[in-house]
Amino acid sequence: MNLVLCLLCIMLIPLAAAGLALIHQGLGRSRSAAHAMLASVCAMAISAIVFVAIGFSFAGFAGAPFHSIAAGGVGWDWLGAAGFFASGVHFDGVDPVGLSKALTLCLGMFAAGLAAMIPLSAGTDRWRLGPICLASALLAGLIYPLFAHWVWGGGWLAQLGTNFGMPGFVDMGGAGVIQVVGGSMGLAVAWILGPRRGKYSDDGMATAIPGHNIVQVLFGCVVALVGWMGLDSAASILFYGAGVTQVVGVVINAMLSASGGCLAAVAITRARYRKPDASLSANGWIAGLVAGSAACAMVSPVAAIDIGVIAGALVTYMIEIFELKLQVDDPGGAISVHAGAGMWGLIAVGLFGHFSDGTRGGHLLAQLVGIATLLGFMLPLLYAGNLLLNRFVPYRVDNDGDWQGMDIRELGAGAYPEFVVHADEFVPR
Amino acid sequence: MNLVLCLLCIMLIPLAAAGLALIHQGLGRSRSAAHAMLASVCAMAISAIVFVAIGFSFAGFAGAPFHSIAAGGVGWDWLGAAGFFASGVHFDGVDPVGLSKALTLCLGMFAAGLAAMIPLSAGTDRWRLGPICLASALLAGLIYPLFAHWVWGGGWLAQLGTNFGMPGFVDMGGAGVIQVVGGSMGLAVAWILGPRRGKYSDDGMATAIPGHNIVQVLFGCVVALVGWMGLDSAASILFYGAGVTQVVGVVINAMLSASGGCLAAVAITRARYRKPDASLSANGWIAGLVAGSAACAMVSPVAAIDIGVIAGALVTYMIEIFELKLQVDDPGGAISVHAGAGMWGLIAVGLFGHFSDGTRGGHLLAQLVGIATLLGFMLPLLYAGNLLLNRFVPYRVDNDGDWQGMDIRELGAGAYPEFVVHADEFVPR
Amino acid sequence: MNLVLCLLCIMLIPLAAAGLALIHQGLGRSRSAAHAMLASVCAMAISAIVFVAIGFSFAGFAGAPFHSIAAGGVGWDWLGAAGFFASGVHFDGVDPVGLSKALTLCLGMFAAGLAAMIPLSAGTDRWRLGPICLASALLAGLIYPLFAHWVWGGGWLAQLGTNFGMPGFVDMGGAGVIQVVGGSMGLAVAWILGPRRGKYSDDGMATAIPGHNIVQVLFGCVVALVGWMGLDSAASILFYGAGVTQVVGVVINAMLSASGGCLAAVAITRARYRKPDASLSANGWIAGLVAGSAACAMVSPVAAIDIGVIAGALVTYMIEIFELKLQVDDPGGAISVHAGAGMWGLIAVGLFGHFSDGTRGGHLLAQLVGIATLLGFMLPLLYAGNLLLNRFVPYRVDNDGDWQGMDIRELGAGAYPEFVVHADEFVPR
Repeated sequence: MNLVLCLLCIMLIPLAAAGLALIHQGLGRSRSAAHAMLASVCAMAISAIVFVAIGFSFAGFAGAPFHSIAAGGVGWDWLGAAGFFASGVHFDGVDPVGLSKALTLCLGMFAAGLAAMIPLSAGTDRWRLGPICLASALLAGLIYPLFAHWVWGGGWLAQLGTNFGMPGFVDMGGAGVIQVVGGSMGLAVAWILGPRRGKYSDDGMATAIPGHNIVQVLFGCVVALVGWMGLDSAASILFYGAGVTQVVGVVINAMLSASGGCLAAVAITRARYRKPDASLSANGWIAGLVAGSAACAMVSPVAAIDIGVIAGALVTYMIEIFELKLQVDDPGGAISVHAGAGMWGLIAVGLFGHFSDGTRGGHLLAQLVGIATLLGFMLPLLYAGNLLLNRFVPYRVDNDGDWQGMDIRELGAGAYPEFVVHADEFVPR
Repeated sequence: MNLVLCLLCIMLIPLAAAGLALIHQGLGRSRSAAHAMLASVCAMAISAIVFVAIGFSFAGFAGAPFHSIAAGGVGWDWLGAAGFFASGVHFDGVDPVGLSKALTLCLGMFAAGLAAMIPLSAGTDRWRLGPICLASALLAGLIYPLFAHWVWGGGWLAQLGTNFGMPGFVDMGGAGVIQVVGGSMGLAVAWILGPRRGKYSDDGMATAIPGHNIVQVLFGCVVALVGWMGLDSAASILFYGAGVTQVVGVVINAMLSASGGCLAAVAITRARYRKPDASLSANGWIAGLVAGSAACAMVSPVAAIDIGVIAGALVTYMIEIFELKLQVDDPGGAISVHAGAGMWGLIAVGLFGHFSDGTRGGHLLAQLVGIATLLGFMLPLLYAGNLLLNRFVPYRVDNDGDWQGMDIRELGAGAYPEFVVHADEFVPR
Repeated sequence: MNLVLCLLCIMLIPLAAAGLALIHQGLGRSRSAAHAMLASVCAMAISAIVFVAIGFSFAGFAGAPFHSIAAGGVGWDWLGAAGFFASGVHFDGVDPVGLSKALTLCLGMFAAGLAAMIPLSAGTDRWRLGPICLASALLAGLIYPLFAHWVWGGGWLAQLGTNFGMPGFVDMGGAGVIQVVGGSMGLAVAWILGPRRGKYSDDGMATAIPGHNIVQVLFGCVVALVGWMGLDSAASILFYGAGVTQVVGVVINAMLSASGGCLAAVAITRARYRKPDASLSANGWIAGLVAGSAACAMVSPVAAIDIGVIAGALVTYMIEIFELKLQVDDPGGAISVHAGAGMWGLIAVGLFGHFSDGTRGGHLLAQLVGIATLLGFMLPLLYAGNLLLNRFVPYRVDNDGDWQGMDIRELGAGAYPEFVVHADEFVPR
């Protein structure tokens, strides 16, 4: 029964992808909108194929073979070793174990796609399609599975307890596995690409480049909510054994975290700029979903609101710091929304989670070990991997393309050929 | 099994919200489109938090404590008294009673949000965001739960029988609880706000102000269908014990009612104006969904078509009467579509429903008691509540804001900053 | 359990319709966009009512009465004979047989609507709304049910084995029943309508008329994916007895086929025109879904990728052949995407399917018999039916309407009245 529920929840996950794709393109320029959508679709597509072909082998699943390394006197399960091309998964059986395995493949396929879509938001308006495809393959085939194995596949982070008498690292809905990994890659990509032409003046002042379609951005938020409820529920059932009543809590918490995140961003932007900022409010909504997913089935509704409010507040400040202080041009706010709020969500597991065993301090420590791994190992790995790819296939469009927009430059046609658009504001000539 | 089905149906309800939000903004002006979407998202968000915090306590659920008042020799269950902040709901159990309770909270949270979104459609292009948030909190925290308790929480309308030997008032999918309540608030808000600038000339002639994006409106109709199928199914299972096969009927009936409503509006507008009106056809589709939801699991497919056709026809005339005769400016047609078609749906329960006991006349009478309560008690209450709020926080944007559009006025940025729009048609200068 | 899963999958099918509607309008002109959406909604609506009223009787279901004809010494089950107006379906029972029957009605209702929407894509920008409604009724009431009965209702194609010792014709997700039937009607309609004004110059050169909103087209692809996963899963369970684990395979395969189709189109258009074509890539995605649906629950993930890649490649060439060589103006590519890729999918059943009995040659032969029936009987029938309707109600808008656009001509108002559009490119004056 729970596994049927899990399957149906997985079927909703593409709506999270659909919502994020709408948000990404809507926060970018109209001259790059078709490119942004096609890049999202291609990232999903490549990730699905590459994850099924090789990524799933490395991600593995509880009970599958794995590679282990001995260090400090104990064995560290660091890499899955399931078959390539889903060879160990059979779809014609009726046993629950086989069904779980198939569901793990299915969920992983969509999760890898979500992770691969996140960096697109940071690279909007200047990241070329070819490198996007290669980077998605790298993420879905090698880097995402690594961390997914450590957390969801029975790897060393999940088993901190076995080696250290600590509780395991917990990430019920993928705040770390999907969001922080994707957001960290967004940071790596934004560093490599540099800002859009015209984003920063010579004296370092940032120009606001508003998103070209806020209606789609906010519609995407509601669509993404449905996908997120599916994602959080499915992962909670599959990796943490959540029951049906707990899943009701997951659905309620997802809505409340998103609500808290959005309203916090509305209130803060209104207080600071006298008018609420619609784009940041949308980012607050998604930040609430991101942060709430880590502890989705183990916190009360009140805690879910708190987690969302803090995520929404955090993101409004973090986006400003990245844009103005650090001069990292992240058009969709992916770094703050996915990596920033995701890390907060992982900490919130330790602060708010109901655990049946272990001390709160122990759980908090386990979460910090996971975050340290994300920042200290995954981010450098993502940066190095993308830097290497960028050597061979330059990520950034040339200067003319930046001015023309990605649609004309890379696809040869605009997204809205019949609509009259303001062609050249924001761009120095 | 049925409760798992119910949970998954609930997860589809946000698609109804997503569809309605698209419809609302598409039927308004482009200069207020981002505001319309943000208002929808904020109304959902506030409603969710306030309903979980306090509204659920008043809405209650069958078997929960309640407040009762003695009048006419019998006790009237008039208000729920469950715990605040969902304190009585536990998500870690496995018993069906606890699961039902959690599902009731979850469904109520989304239902309150839907009700709160409906009046936005009547207030499009002139209702400010701050008052929208307060009014949503008032609705979700106090007024919606009142009527929801009476119908779905075991209150006096559901128990007409116990006190009077009458059948209970029946509203399977929320045509009264959600739609008439929301639509009545739309009427109250439209009265308080008055028409948009330029809508009526000095001699009382109405100017047609067409919606700015009909593609989104019609797309929203199809998206809302999925959400509505979820809503009708979930409420039928949870509050009326519908079985799986009945839920199949609910899904079929939702599609047929929407179809009947849409085609009736197409045919009538074509007959009257020589060309079908796309906006009214969309309104007819939603009116079919609204009217069909009251009796969704207790009528045959043929009756569902009839209910939809009458709803669609009703709405085309009703929108005209409100716009031209009563000079109530309701850009999205929310009053007719939600309150009008909703009341028709409640009557249709008595006319078409298959009942296992009671006379048809008795059921019809029970439905009329419910409608009388909506018109005689809920509408005045909604009007008074909003009038009071309007005292402290003026609902209407000032004259400049009406001319500028809500996006620039309240959010400081337009929804489509790169598209060239006709800036000033329809507005007298 | 499986039937509850089936029901929930059916509830997702309207998302396939929503996605296709977005794609159709986005690939057409802005001046016909509202018309395209309203036509999609009306086609769904009419199909639902007509299918429930009469089509279901002819489509029938396994175990229902049917008409049989004796030829060549054996009996051919050629037409269902269930009750009209769903009279044989009861929604208040609890037995699995009654539930299956109700689900068959429900699935058929949506499937007929999908089939009826497909030809709209070929008739975009010139097919009038009245004839669209009549043609949808003809398809959903008579023609679709015929073929659906033969394949899904226990008719002669499903029972090839009984009469010939051959395996039965297999179409798990409707690649033939829905897609080829709909796409063939698209071809018939495109023939009858002729090309749009300005599409071909006097010397036969084709003018490219790009879609007016590629963002919506690509967003529609992701939304359609969810609906397709529901459709393939529901039909596999209901007509081919697929179990839960097989349905996980269906979901994975749908994603992989779509991915393969999209990436193949990206790669091929890039290789041929130096830049990937976003519209053709979207068509490749849908072609992958179409082709993959035939064998959805009986192939491995690797085969699903292959099926999708070949479908995507096929469609890029086929669209060009229809547009340039055959001078058939099919704005949305419906003929290639639905009929072309659908036939490939039916063949792929024979090439890639895992069968428990029968030889691969036998299965391939059965699939070819089905395709021959589609091309040799259904296509002429569709052409004749539409030609006849066209006699009485001319399909094509007049020359002025072609220039004005369908929105002004048939609906009296544009889809985007506030946006400034390029009014007259592509149209000779």
